[in-house]
Amino acid sequence: MSIQSTIMEMAYNARTVSKQIATCSSDQKNAALFKIAEKLKQNASLIQNENKNDVHLAKEKGLSNAMIDRLTITDATIASMIQGLQEVVQLPDPIGTTSASWTRPNQLHVSRMRIPLGVIGIIYESRPNVTVDAAGLCLKAGNAVILRGGSEAIHSNQALAKTIHEALAETGLPEEIVQVVPIPDREAITWLLHQEEYIDLIIPRGGESLIRFVVENSKIPVLKHYKGVCHVYVDDGADLEMAEKICFNSKVHRPGVCNAMETMLVHENIAKRFLPVMGKRFSDAGVEIRGCAETCRILPKSKPAKEEDWPEEYLDLILSVKVVEDMNFALEHIRKYGSNHTEAIVTQDYSRAQKFLKEVDSSVVLVNASTRFNDGGQLGLGAEIGISTSKLHAFGPMGVEELTTTKFIVLGEGQIRE
Amino acid sequence: MSIQSTIMEMAYNARTVSKQIATCSSDQKNAALFKIAEKLKQNASLIQNENKNDVHLAKEKGLSNAMIDRLTITDATIASMIQGLQEVVQLPDPIGTTSASWTRPNQLHVSRMRIPLGVIGIIYESRPNVTVDAAGLCLKAGNAVILRGGSEAIHSNQALAKTIHEALAETGLPEEIVQVVPIPDREAITWLLHQEEYIDLIIPRGGESLIRFVVENSKIPVLKHYKGVCHVYVDDGADLEMAEKICFNSKVHRPGVCNAMETMLVHENIAKRFLPVMGKRFSDAGVEIRGCAETCRILPKSKPAKEEDWPEEYLDLILSVKVVEDMNFALEHIRKYGSNHTEAIVTQDYSRAQKFLKEVDSSVVLVNASTRFNDGGQLGLGAEIGISTSKLHAFGPMGVEELTTTKFIVLGEGQIRE
Repeated sequence: MSIQSTIMEMAYNARTVSKQIATCSSDQKNAALFKIAEKLKQNASLIQNENKNDVHLAKEKGLSNAMIDRLTITDATIASMIQGLQEVVQLPDPIGTTSASWTRPNQLHVSRMRIPLGVIGIIYESRPNVTVDAAGLCLKAGNAVILRGGSEAIHSNQALAKTIHEALAETGLPEEIVQVVPIPDREAITWLLHQEEYIDLIIPRGGESLIRFVVENSKIPVLKHYKGVCHVYVDDGADLEMAEKICFNSKVHRPGVCNAMETMLVHENIAKRFLPVMGKRFSDAGVEIRGCAETCRILPKSKPAKEEDWPEEYLDLILSVKVVEDMNFALEHIRKYGSNHTEAIVTQDYSRAQKFLKEVDSSVVLVNASTRFNDGGQLGLGAEIGISTSKLHAFGPMGVEELTTTKFIVLGEGQIRE
Repeated sequence: MSIQSTIMEMAYNARTVSKQIATCSSDQKNAALFKIAEKLKQNASLIQNENKNDVHLAKEKGLSNAMIDRLTITDATIASMIQGLQEVVQLPDPIGTTSASWTRPNQLHVSRMRIPLGVIGIIYESRPNVTVDAAGLCLKAGNAVILRGGSEAIHSNQALAKTIHEALAETGLPEEIVQVVPIPDREAITWLLHQEEYIDLIIPRGGESLIRFVVENSKIPVLKHYKGVCHVYVDDGADLEMAEKICFNSKVHRPGVCNAMETMLVHENIAKRFLPVMGKRFSDAGVEIRGCAETCRILPKSKPAKEEDWPEEYLDLILSVKVVEDMNFALEHIRKYGSNHTEAIVTQDYSRAQKFLKEVDSSVVLVNASTRFNDGGQLGLGAEIGISTSKLHAFGPMGVEELTTTKFIVLGEGQIRE
């Protein structure tokens, strides 16, 4: 069978079984999630053996240590997949809830009932744990899902798929609710992106080039973020000790992720007090600073920032720093170079905090807290399927509810339009 | 200037002023809406003169009477545009409201604040009143808007644009908040659909071919419905008098619109009682019936329905009718031929009503009411900008709130991630 036919058949089957999972009870869905967790435990050594194949091939291909690290399924990876599923079980089931209701003057009773989106396609890179995490969230939200992981993880993902299918079968649910594309060729992605008749939403997770490829080729709506060029603005009304803690955490806690700070903006009134202390802490942590002229005067060891530094997502221990005349310049800088992902202000000034919250056009805007909190788990949505910086449907971290929509329910007693 | 440059400049300008309208107070926005209404009254004869040009050219081109009717701006059209704006003023302003809020265990306070989408593009056909209605709704929701009406309405739309610009200028708002594309060529639409950097959402309104053109060419997310193949299922538990009223209203009240019934499904137990009465009423109203074999037996004057009748949106006094063994066959028929738009059941049976509501995958599902209620105004959303049958972002009629999204607001006191 051609790649095109295989993918079309998968998409068609997903659409077919999506009707079934859409009307499953919470108990049935939770039973399936528990069963997947149980099977992961039982099949752990099978999964890890298949994963060894992938890791072996990845090493032969000369993949970076960081990539091999992400690819490897350790005992801890299995345990964390199981824990993730258990957490998803605990989440409230959004399906069937009514989010609003009202009565019209003609006594029609109108409400909005939450329903699944239908079929979701997830396209991701090397981490095989996404296979289980994403499958769990989609299933909880009553959707069928087609997963397409990185070609380098194909053995691991097929072993995980087998495990999930065993669990679904034992729970009496069709296996096609969770399908993993068995084809390593990129052509499979292109065909997947053309199944607009059967797939309702595509979520790509990975580097910017994968995401751009998906957006450019998709006939299906895509929820994504390209990058996170996150800013912290340290106002002259800031508690500087707090600012130090927040900036350090935003940059250094996990520099390789999308919600890490990439640019620090500092009010000129406090730059001479704040930058030397902050610069020392960053320098001790191995952070390279690329500063504006004023920053370089205050911190002579900094590299001068070039124009291309401001829109850059380093994903590394590198930070661009700019001294600004006041908050309006900070807002202007964020408008020009930001990525609508995550922005924070550190200040004790009430009005400026309010203005920053109102005017910054980012999916998460924080006052006096680390940018690292832009995360579904941290913000209380439960597990997250990704972060969206496009405004349609979802803006920010996406949890189970973002994998659903609402339909209108209208209860009448014979009303007609006059 | 080339068409491409003109459109790019319009999109760039819309993006620029969108920051300003996004943070306008409700009072400012309402003042602008009032002023547009006032100017429409003042400029009525100018607008109607320009409209006469369009109508004259349309007649020369031999456009149908129905199209010329839609194109003509009568005194009543002006009055209804003014009334529409006044109603939009009365709607609550969604911007800046917080739709949920909670506190995390670490005392971070999280909420979701409603914000505008940014820049919206509306592509529509002949009715010039859409220019004013859509501009009003987008402005209320804090968005900039680019409008592209049908080429046959270009003089009317430019006169309306001039009127809106005068009103915006007198309210102290930039004219670029509402822009009307002055280019009749279809190339202008194609370029508009490529401004993904500046435009957040495209809403096409018109016939299926326009909508398919937009979807196929757009790099920007599109909210749309292709067609409304709406069903009423008359259950054997129905109050047959009520069923008669509802089916008649659903088909005959305004047959040319998307929420009119196109197929009636009738339970076999009541077909022999219901169809003769209903058939008589339809026949008196000039409705042509295309029936399944059983329907043709009961109503011998019906035409036999062909397979291609079932997915057909007639938009006319034509109705396909099928007798079904029970509700499950009705549900199956709707799954196979429906367009996820509007479906109604007429029944007094509680369990079947519940099952129908739960299982039918349409943007509006009704019990004992006319399909004609799938309309933003009728359902209480205020004016509507269109109806979506795609599930992402909005499913069903879209009012002001559907032209917005939410961002996360996080208030901390120095919290960092450990």
